[in-house]
Amino acid sequence: MMMNEYLVTGMSCGHCEASVRREVTAVRGVEAVEVSAASGRLLVTSQTDVADEDVIAAVDEAGYEAVRVA
Amino acid sequence: MMMNEYLVTGMSCGHCEASVRREVTAVRGVEAVEVSAASGRLLVTSQTDVADEDVIAAVDEAGYEAVRVA
Repeated sequence: MMMNEYLVTGMSCGHCEASVRREVTAVRGVEAVEVSAASGRLLVTSQTDVADEDVIAAVDEAGYEAVRVA
Repeated sequence: MMMNEYLVTGMSCGHCEASVRREVTAVRGVEAVEVSAASGRLLVTSQTDVADEDVIAAVDEAGYEAVRVA
């Protein structure tokens, strides 16, 4: 089990969280997604390694910007 | 043509605006809806009179609170 953390800027409400969650959940290999508009924290859980660029592209698709932090 | 104005609290982004727009547009008699998260302003255009309580109920359905201002 792997957990990668990202910071996402621009989310302001539950709708924003839902948009990010929906896109990141659709990335191949992702098993669980935790996201908070309040903290900007995005935690992605997967069994195998998921490419940062895929997660960041999914967040971009939702309309926000992510950077890997841990 | 009638235009009624409301103030809506709690909207923070375009998703919030879209939720309010969708619900208020569905109110019988409503022809056009302008809504801004930045100002909280909701402008409802209709050919015939639309009850404030129907607009306010639609905003509530979207998850926000509205008061009639003009």
